[in-house]
Amino acid sequence: MASHRYCVIMCGGVGSRFWPYSRENRPKQFIDFLGTGRSLLQMSYDRILPLVPKENIVVVTNARYAHLIREQLPDIDEHNILLEPARRNTAPCIAWAAYHIAAMDPEASMIVTPSDHLITGESIFADSVARGFDFVETHDALLTLGIKPTRPETGYGYIQIGREETEGILKVKTFTEKPNADLAKVFLDSGEFFWNAGIFLWKASSIIEALHRYDSDLTTLFDRGLGVFGTPGEKEFIEHNFESCPANSIDYAVMEKAENVYVECVNFGWNDLGTWSALYDNSAKNEQANVAGDTRVLAYESTGNIFAAGSEKLVVVHGLNDYIIADTGDVLLVCPKSEEQRIKQMVTDVKLTFGDTYL
Amino acid sequence: MASHRYCVIMCGGVGSRFWPYSRENRPKQFIDFLGTGRSLLQMSYDRILPLVPKENIVVVTNARYAHLIREQLPDIDEHNILLEPARRNTAPCIAWAAYHIAAMDPEASMIVTPSDHLITGESIFADSVARGFDFVETHDALLTLGIKPTRPETGYGYIQIGREETEGILKVKTFTEKPNADLAKVFLDSGEFFWNAGIFLWKASSIIEALHRYDSDLTTLFDRGLGVFGTPGEKEFIEHNFESCPANSIDYAVMEKAENVYVECVNFGWNDLGTWSALYDNSAKNEQANVAGDTRVLAYESTGNIFAAGSEKLVVVHGLNDYIIADTGDVLLVCPKSEEQRIKQMVTDVKLTFGDTYL
Repeated sequence: MASHRYCVIMCGGVGSRFWPYSRENRPKQFIDFLGTGRSLLQMSYDRILPLVPKENIVVVTNARYAHLIREQLPDIDEHNILLEPARRNTAPCIAWAAYHIAAMDPEASMIVTPSDHLITGESIFADSVARGFDFVETHDALLTLGIKPTRPETGYGYIQIGREETEGILKVKTFTEKPNADLAKVFLDSGEFFWNAGIFLWKASSIIEALHRYDSDLTTLFDRGLGVFGTPGEKEFIEHNFESCPANSIDYAVMEKAENVYVECVNFGWNDLGTWSALYDNSAKNEQANVAGDTRVLAYESTGNIFAAGSEKLVVVHGLNDYIIADTGDVLLVCPKSEEQRIKQMVTDVKLTFGDTYL
Repeated sequence: MASHRYCVIMCGGVGSRFWPYSRENRPKQFIDFLGTGRSLLQMSYDRILPLVPKENIVVVTNARYAHLIREQLPDIDEHNILLEPARRNTAPCIAWAAYHIAAMDPEASMIVTPSDHLITGESIFADSVARGFDFVETHDALLTLGIKPTRPETGYGYIQIGREETEGILKVKTFTEKPNADLAKVFLDSGEFFWNAGIFLWKASSIIEALHRYDSDLTTLFDRGLGVFGTPGEKEFIEHNFESCPANSIDYAVMEKAENVYVECVNFGWNDLGTWSALYDNSAKNEQANVAGDTRVLAYESTGNIFAAGSEKLVVVHGLNDYIIADTGDVLLVCPKSEEQRIKQMVTDVKLTFGDTYL
């Protein structure tokens, strides 16, 4: 059975909220973000490798990152690197991967995972994924992983659970957007809400069927390519057609609409590393409540900061509280954590003022 | 007459208050501090070159900076580079230079100048120096330049003037240390006090005579070398004896004690660039009241800061007011201007924690 199991690692994002650490030419997932010696993408690959045959791991990314995939994952077969000619969010990405895999193996089941999240507790992860595969292989189900929440986080989407289908796997009642603080507290206390991790399992045939039902524009386009997926003609077909796909998320296109949506409630450590604050909140702090990672820091009357400046640089600060201090050699950012939602605007300003040099 | 005029440029300082921009292996005076393309030392040299024959310019520095002198002032004759084997403050430095110059030219007059100050208004400077030379060449006088104060600066020493000896040149009544803010205001309003710029003029014979009278320990030591100054034996003599000199400033050793001390009241722009705040106060500010020099800065809700990160780096800050942001590639310092007196301690802490790497 295992040989019908596939993995799709999505790694086309730009991670602009982590600028300047995450850059257009080397986004967050390609960076050794935690100073472990492995990039987030490599950690995602390492995590999935015991669960799926190596030759069944497919990476989808933007064409401009092809060289980074080859550099960081040299074991991935060229045939398994799907290069998107344009950014179109997750629905087109997943659709293509599903058509590609189904063409090679009509019985395929697959896990779809982001490449830039942090997961701890790998054996729990492995057990959860195995159970998820078992479920989707025996049900026409679209399964998403729901993380048991540990705090009233307002930065995540939540999944409300319904009736239990089998142990640990329940019908989804609703998906909800990021709640405000009060609502997040209610969600946490209720025990009925789980974090939406954006990790999905299904049979390739199940997701293709659901896409036909709920996003037929997309499948009309991809159906024109039936016969070329998995062949040398696939690349040309994609280059001519992919840009026509409307940008859309798989959540919006399918998960929030379909009837056969399930959630597996899991308990491994997870963080989407979506913001500097999230990284701060989930990182080890020193005695001054600063997160320094592998950066050498001397902090005077400074607390609650997160430093990211690589392992060689010395950072000396005085009188900074709750700041992001990120240095990448050519760019330095000093910004309060509370203002981090403005980083995207800053990146836009940088582009307007200085062109592409610092993006 | 001009050929008896000499200049001594003192450039052995370490400039630790400007760490990390000023480093042990390349202190402030060797840095293109203002982004003009010339270091402060080179600017000092350029300024004096029209006033003194090139072959009469002597540079005194620490032995470890010999290569920097040769690199930055390639026109200086090797014979005119005096390399101190140890740091002993200004009195031994000036004593050696005076003995060295007197040995070559018993009729020498000399200007002694720091290498790390900022002077604007070069033609006023030139006129002032010429007048000073004229005076000391015709009087047995120790002359210091007093800058007409423009603000109640608490960071400088002041000179109180006495009776006028000749136009613009007056007897010194007292030297005073850095005053508090109230006193500085009184000094400024009185019109009787001038900033002590640490720029001196005298005949070599006059300062040697004064040293004999007020610091005979020093002259006893240097008198043992009479006959070797200006000869190939000078280097060895210094290497064996210089370290025995007690560290002392020329102000304390001579100027505050001697009777024949005069001040020339001058009016050129001057800043000792002693602190980041001083540099901030005396630099051009942008519309956000930030001093950015040649650093590329995007500042959001940030004012009153001074940035020094070179011309290539982009610095983006949010919510920083009245800070020093100094980046030198391997070191980043972010410190309120009001806490800059702690930088020396920080440098000590850096040494204790990380060794000499970042000094």
